[in-house]
Amino acid sequence: MPIRTDLALECREMFAEEISGVESTRKDSDGITVTHVKITTQEGADKIGKPIGSYVTIEIDEMLHENEDILNRGAQAVCDELKKLVKISPEDSVLVVGLGNRYITPDSIGPKTVGKLTVTRHITKEGGGGFDFSVRPVSAVAPGVLGITGIETSEIVKGVLTHVKPSLIIAVDALASRKLSRLGTTVQLSDTGISPGSGVRNNRKELTEKTLGVPVIAIGVPMVVDAVTLSIDIMETVSKHLQEKSSISAASFPNGDSMSLLKSAISENMVVTPNDVDVIAEQASDIIADGINMALLQN
Amino acid sequence: MPIRTDLALECREMFAEEISGVESTRKDSDGITVTHVKITTQEGADKIGKPIGSYVTIEIDEMLHENEDILNRGAQAVCDELKKLVKISPEDSVLVVGLGNRYITPDSIGPKTVGKLTVTRHITKEGGGGFDFSVRPVSAVAPGVLGITGIETSEIVKGVLTHVKPSLIIAVDALASRKLSRLGTTVQLSDTGISPGSGVRNNRKELTEKTLGVPVIAIGVPMVVDAVTLSIDIMETVSKHLQEKSSISAASFPNGDSMSLLKSAISENMVVTPNDVDVIAEQASDIIADGINMALLQN
Amino acid sequence: MPIRTDLALECREMFAEEISGVESTRKDSDGITVTHVKITTQEGADKIGKPIGSYVTIEIDEMLHENEDILNRGAQAVCDELKKLVKISPEDSVLVVGLGNRYITPDSIGPKTVGKLTVTRHITKEGGGGFDFSVRPVSAVAPGVLGITGIETSEIVKGVLTHVKPSLIIAVDALASRKLSRLGTTVQLSDTGISPGSGVRNNRKELTEKTLGVPVIAIGVPMVVDAVTLSIDIMETVSKHLQEKSSISAASFPNGDSMSLLKSAISENMVVTPNDVDVIAEQASDIIADGINMALLQN
Amino acid sequence: MPIRTDLALECREMFAEEISGVESTRKDSDGITVTHVKITTQEGADKIGKPIGSYVTIEIDEMLHENEDILNRGAQAVCDELKKLVKISPEDSVLVVGLGNRYITPDSIGPKTVGKLTVTRHITKEGGGGFDFSVRPVSAVAPGVLGITGIETSEIVKGVLTHVKPSLIIAVDALASRKLSRLGTTVQLSDTGISPGSGVRNNRKELTEKTLGVPVIAIGVPMVVDAVTLSIDIMETVSKHLQEKSSISAASFPNGDSMSLLKSAISENMVVTPNDVDVIAEQASDIIADGINMALLQN
Repeated sequence: MPIRTDLALECREMFAEEISGVESTRKDSDGITVTHVKITTQEGADKIGKPIGSYVTIEIDEMLHENEDILNRGAQAVCDELKKLVKISPEDSVLVVGLGNRYITPDSIGPKTVGKLTVTRHITKEGGGGFDFSVRPVSAVAPGVLGITGIETSEIVKGVLTHVKPSLIIAVDALASRKLSRLGTTVQLSDTGISPGSGVRNNRKELTEKTLGVPVIAIGVPMVVDAVTLSIDIMETVSKHLQEKSSISAASFPNGDSMSLLKSAISENMVVTPNDVDVIAEQASDIIADGINMALLQN
Repeated sequence: MPIRTDLALECREMFAEEISGVESTRKDSDGITVTHVKITTQEGADKIGKPIGSYVTIEIDEMLHENEDILNRGAQAVCDELKKLVKISPEDSVLVVGLGNRYITPDSIGPKTVGKLTVTRHITKEGGGGFDFSVRPVSAVAPGVLGITGIETSEIVKGVLTHVKPSLIIAVDALASRKLSRLGTTVQLSDTGISPGSGVRNNRKELTEKTLGVPVIAIGVPMVVDAVTLSIDIMETVSKHLQEKSSISAASFPNGDSMSLLKSAISENMVVTPNDVDVIAEQASDIIADGINMALLQN
Repeated sequence: MPIRTDLALECREMFAEEISGVESTRKDSDGITVTHVKITTQEGADKIGKPIGSYVTIEIDEMLHENEDILNRGAQAVCDELKKLVKISPEDSVLVVGLGNRYITPDSIGPKTVGKLTVTRHITKEGGGGFDFSVRPVSAVAPGVLGITGIETSEIVKGVLTHVKPSLIIAVDALASRKLSRLGTTVQLSDTGISPGSGVRNNRKELTEKTLGVPVIAIGVPMVVDAVTLSIDIMETVSKHLQEKSSISAASFPNGDSMSLLKSAISENMVVTPNDVDVIAEQASDIIADGINMALLQN
Repeated sequence: MPIRTDLALECREMFAEEISGVESTRKDSDGITVTHVKITTQEGADKIGKPIGSYVTIEIDEMLHENEDILNRGAQAVCDELKKLVKISPEDSVLVVGLGNRYITPDSIGPKTVGKLTVTRHITKEGGGGFDFSVRPVSAVAPGVLGITGIETSEIVKGVLTHVKPSLIIAVDALASRKLSRLGTTVQLSDTGISPGSGVRNNRKELTEKTLGVPVIAIGVPMVVDAVTLSIDIMETVSKHLQEKSSISAASFPNGDSMSLLKSAISENMVVTPNDVDVIAEQASDIIADGINMALLQN
């Protein structure tokens, strides 16, 4: 069933029962809910449909209300969870990769985040700046998208790595969620990097420790719901409702028939976004950039 | 039934039968289809759900294939249909209003078009430029959206009118269509101006000859499908299919029950857009700006 | 002598002696210097070359060092001086006008500021939002520039006024200073509005209480030095130096000869900007928007 | 003498006499002047201050008059001269590098050009697209600037090269000229790549065949004049004029004294740009992108 979501939390939610090899804990604190989903075995990974690793979801209730205080607390949560997810030594050099297309509002949070980061590598010894401060070398790139560059993002990042040689990569990207209510209100961090097919853009190759040789932390905010996914969910709801009402057990939806109906109606490249996606993209990139800046530059 | 579409063509398509007070003609020409829908009576207007007036739809088959030739022919068609829709005397002064939010890609074609227009008013006598060329005074504003200005677009336009005093207004806006396949491939021109509730943004007050005192031509390209509209269409398709299969006459969808299901699932402010909406917005504003420039500046 | 500066402070600095009808006070406080220049008579105005009124200059030493604390204190100073300059009653409605061209980095701080303001008018009774909060109606427009709209900015503002009817206008604009060191480090507020010919863009007509019927506060940050002004200053310095060295009293520069030399070399439309003008424009619009937001929305 | 110019033509113009190892030819054609400066010996290179190689300058008289025809002929000239400068076989893969800062209008023509190119590599076999058209693989990156990425541009380009492996690099950049009249009206192409210190941004390391291993064609348009350079020119003019007038042979300007005066007055990071730099940047990137597209995609 082609339900598309980048959130491990939503993958987990598809199952009511306990899953072997998948642990999940949840903590509420004054309007911010942090959920940890840990996939520890390949069996769990196969069931959930996500690679083995740790996934942290920060849900921020009032994020869309432009409340300065909640944004600060959200950024602090991103900082805290990032530091729990990966041990960053003071001398570690970090490269932030802002994925996505700056010209498409919901896809722009990667490049927007890069523009809001404090980079330092060029003033350190490592970057040729000569100074040997106690400052950690931080660098950042927004490699652009395949349609504009003609080059796979992963190829550009691999290339940059051969020269920048960071100890850690943080990849920032816009995500797809299943539920509309999560758009712009949720931040996911994971230590698994980014794998092809799991996000909005299928053709991107892996950005993982396996392919890049250094740990890759992925940070993202859901900005779209896939139109096919939304449609399947609606079909399911209708079907259930219809069956209850008419007490027929007949056609349970969606099924093969309905999927081909759907595919004829909706191109694969359609997504659902909120009308005020400009405000949401600004806020999401603020929270991520502030969180990363705090985690990397303060001791 | 809250099917939302700004295209008169799609309103007409909801009816199989002939409608009194609504005429429709269609002409294909080498990949470009021009359909005229003319609503001549209030009865027709009530049935269709659009004001009395003329609506021209230009459908451009290959528009998404970045073919230079088709874009030129599309612009020429916009120019031709604009000149047929309204008689513009050589001395008429024209104000172009670019509606929408420049920071949201699918909503940006109004402001983008304004940036691509050739304005001339400031070099004419009328604009204080002193010259008395044979050049027609053309001016343009992108008034911004309510959420950023705190002012109704119609208030700003009315204010500008009191000083600019054009003989004709052309309002350019992103539209909502019912069908995904029309996104970025269709241009609608009409002589009815823009009425509240007919588009993506409900709260905007009318921009019509009645409210502004001069003729208002509306030009737009569908850039989004309302998420509720898409969902209703899918529910309907599923319901029909289910009923045919199980030969039950029971619950026909969508109905009151399903609409409330739907409304609980989808906020009113969600829209569906293509993934490559940046390219589409660039092309759409190119075609409209080129078409307007040709119609206004060439004799 | 065509020295171009929008800063009353720099106009005052051209005279060593006391000037009748011009008072000036200065206060330093921890890296922020506030200078008040008050022109009280027409004689003073003629001498200085600025209209009668109050001019406040906030000079922020470390503004270019991206220090979060200094930016906050700068915004607070803008808020404080704004409130001293004009009495704003809780029920006063305020319109902010962001002047300048968003597509030119040093000229973009007006439009950028508008994008960072909290507007409220549309949720109040006055704006049709129905609510009767204790919230003050704040609205904002970025009217664009003559070359893009074909309409004088003053015409657009006058038009908007007839519908919005604010009690106060705040006009935000990029300024020209004489000294390079003031670029991006100085904020000027004045209660005189904006007069043609005093800034970078000559052709704009007045935005003053006289022409608009409501008080107009102007807020700006110098972002450019006029290239002719810089050149005259350099000629003068060279000439002085040369004369001292060679003890000739001969040709004192600049004079009529040199001015025509200069005019043949430099077009009037050339300006000098810092290389990192993007960072400076971001900071300047942050400080102004934060200052205005604080002044208008907090009680 | 720190006269800064990226144009070989202007370096040549500093000498009235013939220079050994430097050939120069010039051809006018209906408003477009093409000058070839060829530096053939190290002696010539040392004298001129530019590396050995070929430099082509296309001067387009009416470029600032927004004439569609002149823009098309300019793009055609870029295409023609590019093809003369380097033999591009049909199977050659080409990488275009757009240098500069997209957030600063005069520095944005590199990134702007990248956004206007037709890239094809991802649909070819080489790019993993599987197809084996007769289409040449074209790719493009806009690596960003040191202050935003913390990484030298040359490091990013070298990294990308290890994966993309083009046969030719075209580097597009904003240039500094000596004369204000050349801003936005001149295109320079050269087969020498880009060397540090020769442009606006000093710290960038070389992008040359020597450092990158493949031929590097540089294409640029002057968008700024260095403020120190302009000032020196003005000092010189004044000094000459003064000496003629007063018939003193005394202090010839600029000299050591005046240079230190100048340096205390003008920070190194100040540049002069035209007021309508937004229009000029749009046109310059249009001409370069069209010229490159024509040269690479047509046979």
